[in-house]
Amino acid sequence: MDKIEILGMVAAVLTTAGYVPQVYKTWQEKSTKDISLSTYLILFLGVLLWFAYGLLIDSLPVTLANAITGCLLFFMLILKFKYK
Amino acid sequence: MDKIEILGMVAAVLTTAGYVPQVYKTWQEKSTKDISLSTYLILFLGVLLWFAYGLLIDSLPVTLANAITGCLLFFMLILKFKYK
Repeated sequence: MDKIEILGMVAAVLTTAGYVPQVYKTWQEKSTKDISLSTYLILFLGVLLWFAYGLLIDSLPVTLANAITGCLLFFMLILKFKYK
Repeated sequence: MDKIEILGMVAAVLTTAGYVPQVYKTWQEKSTKDISLSTYLILFLGVLLWFAYGLLIDSLPVTLANAITGCLLFFMLILKFKYK
């Protein structure tokens, strides 16, 4: 794996793991007033398409990163509906 | 552009445009209590790396999508610091 691919992998890890503090905060504080439902719905749909794209181009990093991000966004959607 | 690339482009548009409703909501409501600062800092750093990756692999879609997403996330960070 060359340096450019490592850069891409680090980027993928950050834009996936980045949602963890938000999920944790929302889960702890049980408040979603300031969270945009539209944003999470659109991001979730986008990530589902990235996941399909990753499968179609046979890219494990794209598929895996978006599978995890999809789970985190889906969890945020559940919290948003639960704690309106 | 084949069907798979169109799918990737739609995915990129969604995961970029997805942040617009959040920025608009936060800008209107001036409240960021439920927004995780860590999440936006990590996502912003990740998107900067995706932008650099896009430049290095000469991919206009990756570079452009992440430049726009970076601006939206930066705007959210400003709002988060302004409306603590």
